[in-house]
Amino acid sequence: MVSVEIIAVGTELLLGQLVDTNTAHIAAQLAASGINVYGTQTVGDNRERIAGVIGRVLDRADGVITSGGLGPTVDDLTKEAACDALGVPLELHEPSLQAMEQLFAMFGRPMRENNRKQAMMPLGAHVLPNPNGSAPGFVAARSDGKFVAAMPGVPHEMKPMLADQLLPWLRERFGLQAAFYTRVLHTIGLGESEIDHRIDELFRTLENPKIGILAHGSRCDVKLMAKAGSAEEAEELFAPIQTQIESQLVGHLYGRDAQTLESVIHERLQAAGKSVGAAESCTGGLICAALTSVPGSSQSFRGGVIVYDNALKSDLLAVDSAAIERFGAVSAQVAEQMAAGAIGCLNSDLAIATTGIAGPGGGSAEKPVGLVWIGLADRAGGRQSHRLQFPGERTVIQARATTSALGLLWRYLAAR
Amino acid sequence: MVSVEIIAVGTELLLGQLVDTNTAHIAAQLAASGINVYGTQTVGDNRERIAGVIGRVLDRADGVITSGGLGPTVDDLTKEAACDALGVPLELHEPSLQAMEQLFAMFGRPMRENNRKQAMMPLGAHVLPNPNGSAPGFVAARSDGKFVAAMPGVPHEMKPMLADQLLPWLRERFGLQAAFYTRVLHTIGLGESEIDHRIDELFRTLENPKIGILAHGSRCDVKLMAKAGSAEEAEELFAPIQTQIESQLVGHLYGRDAQTLESVIHERLQAAGKSVGAAESCTGGLICAALTSVPGSSQSFRGGVIVYDNALKSDLLAVDSAAIERFGAVSAQVAEQMAAGAIGCLNSDLAIATTGIAGPGGGSAEKPVGLVWIGLADRAGGRQSHRLQFPGERTVIQARATTSALGLLWRYLAAR
Repeated sequence: MVSVEIIAVGTELLLGQLVDTNTAHIAAQLAASGINVYGTQTVGDNRERIAGVIGRVLDRADGVITSGGLGPTVDDLTKEAACDALGVPLELHEPSLQAMEQLFAMFGRPMRENNRKQAMMPLGAHVLPNPNGSAPGFVAARSDGKFVAAMPGVPHEMKPMLADQLLPWLRERFGLQAAFYTRVLHTIGLGESEIDHRIDELFRTLENPKIGILAHGSRCDVKLMAKAGSAEEAEELFAPIQTQIESQLVGHLYGRDAQTLESVIHERLQAAGKSVGAAESCTGGLICAALTSVPGSSQSFRGGVIVYDNALKSDLLAVDSAAIERFGAVSAQVAEQMAAGAIGCLNSDLAIATTGIAGPGGGSAEKPVGLVWIGLADRAGGRQSHRLQFPGERTVIQARATTSALGLLWRYLAAR
Repeated sequence: MVSVEIIAVGTELLLGQLVDTNTAHIAAQLAASGINVYGTQTVGDNRERIAGVIGRVLDRADGVITSGGLGPTVDDLTKEAACDALGVPLELHEPSLQAMEQLFAMFGRPMRENNRKQAMMPLGAHVLPNPNGSAPGFVAARSDGKFVAAMPGVPHEMKPMLADQLLPWLRERFGLQAAFYTRVLHTIGLGESEIDHRIDELFRTLENPKIGILAHGSRCDVKLMAKAGSAEEAEELFAPIQTQIESQLVGHLYGRDAQTLESVIHERLQAAGKSVGAAESCTGGLICAALTSVPGSSQSFRGGVIVYDNALKSDLLAVDSAAIERFGAVSAQVAEQMAAGAIGCLNSDLAIATTGIAGPGGGSAEKPVGLVWIGLADRAGGRQSHRLQFPGERTVIQARATTSALGLLWRYLAAR
């Protein structure tokens, strides 16, 4: 199996001023192509150290992939260090210089002398053009065939270069055919250990596909990873396992792969020809923001009201002020009345409502911080409410209440 | 200067299934304590490889700090590997076992046999208790004084352990007195290069504090880093520089350090005894969510309406439907009418409104995707609107429009 290491270059990473997301992205893409990532490192903007790290990696791996340090400034030293490690000089790469001149002309900005540095490439390197920025990347090989691939550190420049140029080069160079395919099954409302328990037998014995569970708060992903020669072959491996898993997780499995809770809610709403609205107190707009993050959501999302003020709950949503006085704003009665009122106010077929205590203040022994009531209503007069209690700080409580509300809305739609 | 390296342990990191945020956090905290981070690495759940990496790091640095691999499963091998590298055995640490038994009793969960493994510690190690989870950390020293510090990988367990236990241990062990202090000045509405230009002279010549600029979309942070013996001494170094920078950035500097755009808006609203409401179309609830993310925001945030549907713009906000027909829903007129209508609907002193085309569909030559109008109104009848054009995909446009709307609201409040 081909084995590479990933090096992130940049002193700002060593100072913790920036979280390196490039390495995880590159690692995931390599894994999906059947390339083994043996280790990753971060190194500062120091020519000697970068060259040292590259040299040591090449002693034990087939190649090294770097991100960062290809810019125009004196601090950008990855190219020089790669040349040191490979024992080759830099030379001017005319096509890169021309591409850069065109890019600067397009932006209407003057090209500075230090940008010319970005068109210098290790002698004999395979250049990876950068349509999204000024720094091209490259792959340069040592006499023994081991390689250094260098890409820019800006994620929106690096990602397309990896997908469109470096990965095809690696697949060709190493004749990679079997690749790894993943299928992700998204669940809500079951804990990691409960899912583990339900699919234990599969989980322990399967080799291809392998199964993993990743928890994200109240959502859990079941991940299948198959080694296969093609997408079709992978699908054949997934299908029977997936059917077994789905039968164990009925009522909790809301989507797969790129689907999100929001996107499946919109799919179900559109299929049913129904619209939804939201009345939010403690979640403060997060439910509306989640529902409107989906392209095309205007087809089934009517609107929402954020009612922090109790008077607004009565004015806009016709919540009975006597109910607020008797049961409190955080109560089953008020949650249901908010949802029912939202249908009238927003003219939607369904409505979801939240009222709770996000903290840090406002809690009591009877109604502690983290208590949230979620209400759901439909135009036919149906009403339901759910009591939830979340741990954590304000923004965590708000986020969990949002996910739970969306989960209840999904379950309501899925049951019909 | 004390020099350490950071190692993140976990095969999931090498597969790119998880972005490692621990390393950046640890690096930033070490930098602030005057400890030099020479490099960082990631290694999989493999005892021999972890031990090998630790051993090689100890050959060149004063110590190594690991995160991850302290859990109860057979995949958790950091402790065993550290013992291999240090040449010491594991022994049962009674106080850790007792603490763990108490934790499980509190959760009402049975303690399994494999949890006992978490109470095993390298012989002679200084144990770092974990009040937030079951895995304690430790610092173990080699005969030559070089150290291995190990912490759990779960961020909310690792962070307090680092702050409350490991950093004090390191400061004591290495007699660290001079530390690094930072002051962050937050700006909005100026580009990185414009700020660089305005503070160029300071930026180039200063040694202590050093100045850096970090861009986050339309917001930019100017970061001062001072080496000082105490917070007071750092303050004396910051004060004159800060005054000079502030004078160059008037009208754009909205806060410092932990302050956010949302928090300073609430501070100004509370100082003025005023309330705000929001009417959102393209931002879909993000402005309300930002304003309600601040503890105590109910004092000055009244509520909001999310009006995706044009009929709702008229019904709830009294936007003139003739104006929508004549100018379009994405127009200065509608943005201003939405803001003015929100004051009536929400009974707030001020209101901010957005209407725009977040895409990917719905754009035209005249009104392309990314066009956003922001309206602002006050109870006295004042109205203003601002036209903005953002690049990027749907969620990026929504996020940038939200920041710009909050920026305009802040500027309105700051000017009064």
